[in-house]
This record gives sequence, structure tokens and C-alpha cells, in this order.
Amino acid sequence: MSNDSTYMHWLRERILNEGVYLGNGILKVDAFMNHQVDPLLMQGIGYEFARRFRGQHPTKILTAETSGIAPALAAGMMLQVPVVFARKTKPLTLKDEPYQASAPSHTKGGVVTLMVAHEFLSPNDRALIIDDFLASALTIRALAEIVRQSGATLVGIGAVIEKAFEGGRGALRDLNTQVESLAVIERFDGDKIVFAE
Amino acid sequence: MSNDSTYMHWLRERILNEGVYLGNGILKVDAFMNHQVDPLLMQGIGYEFARRFRGQHPTKILTAETSGIAPALAAGMMLQVPVVFARKTKPLTLKDEPYQASAPSHTKGGVVTLMVAHEFLSPNDRALIIDDFLASALTIRALAEIVRQSGATLVGIGAVIEKAFEGGRGALRDLNTQVESLAVIERFDGDKIVFAE
Repeated sequence: MSNDSTYMHWLRERILNEGVYLGNGILKVDAFMNHQVDPLLMQGIGYEFARRFRGQHPTKILTAETSGIAPALAAGMMLQVPVVFARKTKPLTLKDEPYQASAPSHTKGGVVTLMVAHEFLSPNDRALIIDDFLASALTIRALAEIVRQSGATLVGIGAVIEKAFEGGRGALRDLNTQVESLAVIERFDGDKIVFAE
Repeated sequence: MSNDSTYMHWLRERILNEGVYLGNGILKVDAFMNHQVDPLLMQGIGYEFARRFRGQHPTKILTAETSGIAPALAAGMMLQVPVVFARKTKPLTLKDEPYQASAPSHTKGGVVTLMVAHEFLSPNDRALIIDDFLASALTIRALAEIVRQSGATLVGIGAVIEKAFEGGRGALRDLNTQVESLAVIERFDGDKIVFAE
């Protein structure tokens, strides 16, 4: 706790009190992040991401629609840098060939292709990836692949909740970047949530 | 301008400078709202929604994924009320039969069904609907239908950009609620954007 903020203690409390374990490693946090969003908690999350990544001087935050938008925007407000959310379906407004990378969807099934228009990520950018969950890290790797395609520099990866038992952190090691999770779940013991440490 | 804030002047400037008219009434504002999000502008938008709707004492903000999330969250931060975003695909975490209503998609084609879990909208709630665009108002009417199903009271509807020529405001009249748009586009003159007044 010594290195940790009051906000992050609060985040763990919210996960314990309102998170619902659905089995198969799926944690439902619809009450404050994935369906209903608590704006004050998000501000705390943004504050904490800003504290941990400010030294990397990001110029863009990259996330994936839908559930990454709230924490990414909160971080963007604190760091005062633009937030780009990768699209999963190509809207009519997205012309030309975007950067794209695919990842299987954990909670929806199937494979999703993430797309980012060229104009919003360039070789001059220092990109910070923010997402709601770090689990298998396949979505985050797809975002990192988009950063690579754009020529931008990846300066960090932040997740609100890490499910450590899915091995995502190891899967990101070759990216040689700072990885931060605000709450780390070590395992589920029955339907009980056990945090790391 | 007398009744208007500096933020909203700035919003119109951003629309003029960065909005791209694609024809068929479709305005692309991917540079600051629908693909890349400017957090400072969103804070101004949230401030302005809060100013206009605070007197209605909303207890919940309701929006639709994806593009409504940023302005709705910004408003939620200013008003300190939770934000619920209606889902367009049913994630594994959404059990039971949600409230639902359908609307045709302007920019993606086809029909989307908006879903909200029962636990996040109740007869005790005073619901404020916030979305990125007020055009034909079909998405907003679907959100209002979800409010009706829940038994909550609809206390207002706010849109960042209104395309007045699509008649959405008239289509909302029977809901008898306060409707506010932060920038009102009267028409497109060639590829030139003409604001109301």
C-alpha cells in the first residue's frame, strides 16, 4: 500500500464489492466501468495513470472501443493529450485503408479487427496504450501492432484491472515498455477475488 | 453569443476547422469526437451540459456506445452522476433480458438494438440522455424508449451537434422534455457548414 494511492485502494474495494465473477476467468464490472461508469472513480483512475506515465511524455493515448474509452479519456484529461479509440467496425466516415490488427474477443466471441485512421497516429507520436483489462493481452498486442504500423513510439501500456493468471504481462515482455495495472487479480478462489500481494 | 459560453464558440470553431462534410448530410468530426477525442474540449462540453441541465437534477446519464461515451462521461464528471452506456451487442456479462429498443444506424447502415441492464436504470432515476449528434433523432428516441421501459423519468436530452435540417428536434417534441444542442448546423452550403442564427 505504501506506493499506492487512496484511489487505487478504492478501486480494489469497488471490484470486491461490485465485481461479479461469472466463471471461466470472466469478471463482470458492469457497475462502474463496462456498462455503467462511475465518473469520480474514472477521475481517480485517470489521475493514477497520469502519475505513473507522465514521465514517458506521451503525445497520444490509444485505446479500443468500447470499454477502454472511459479510462483512456480520464487519463487523457489528466495528461492533456488526445485520445484515439480504435474502431471495431468501419464507419462510413473512415475512408482509405486504416492501420489495422485483429484479436479474438474475450467477452463477445469471434475475432475483431481494430482500425485506426492514418491521420491520428504518426511517427512523431509517443503512444500510451490504455485499456480496461489486461488478461491474455491479445487486444493490447493488436493495439501495439497498430502503433508499430504507424511508426509511433510505444511509451507504455496501462490497464485498470489485470487478471494475472491469464499471463498477459509475460506476453507483453518483448515490447520492452512500461506496463502498469491499477488492480492486479492473482486468482479467483471459488467466486472470491484474490488480489496480488 | 450573449447566452453562450467561450467553450461553445470554441466547439463551433473546431467544427468549422476540422469537420469534414462527406455529403448526404454526414459530417465527419473524427478529429475531436468520433475517433480521436480532445479531452479539453470534452471537458468544456461537459461543463456546458452541466450548466444547462443541473436544474433538472439528473441521477443518471444515458448514452449509446460508442461515440456518445466521451461527451456523456464529461457531463457525468461535471454533474457527478453515473453514466450508463447502452450496448449495441450483447456481451457475455449481460445476463437476463435487458431493456432494449432498436434504431437504424446512420453511419454504419443496418439496424442496431440498444440494450441496458435492468440494474442500472430504475423508476427512482431521473435520466438525462446525452449523445454526440442530434440528426433524425432515431437513436435518441430508442434511448428514450429504454428510459420509458425502466420507469425512470426523462429529464432532458443533450446533443453536442445538431443537424437541424434532419428534423430531429421536431421528432422529440412529444417527449415534452428539455432538448439542448451545443452547436446547431442549419445546413450545408456545398461543403461549407452553416450554423443556425
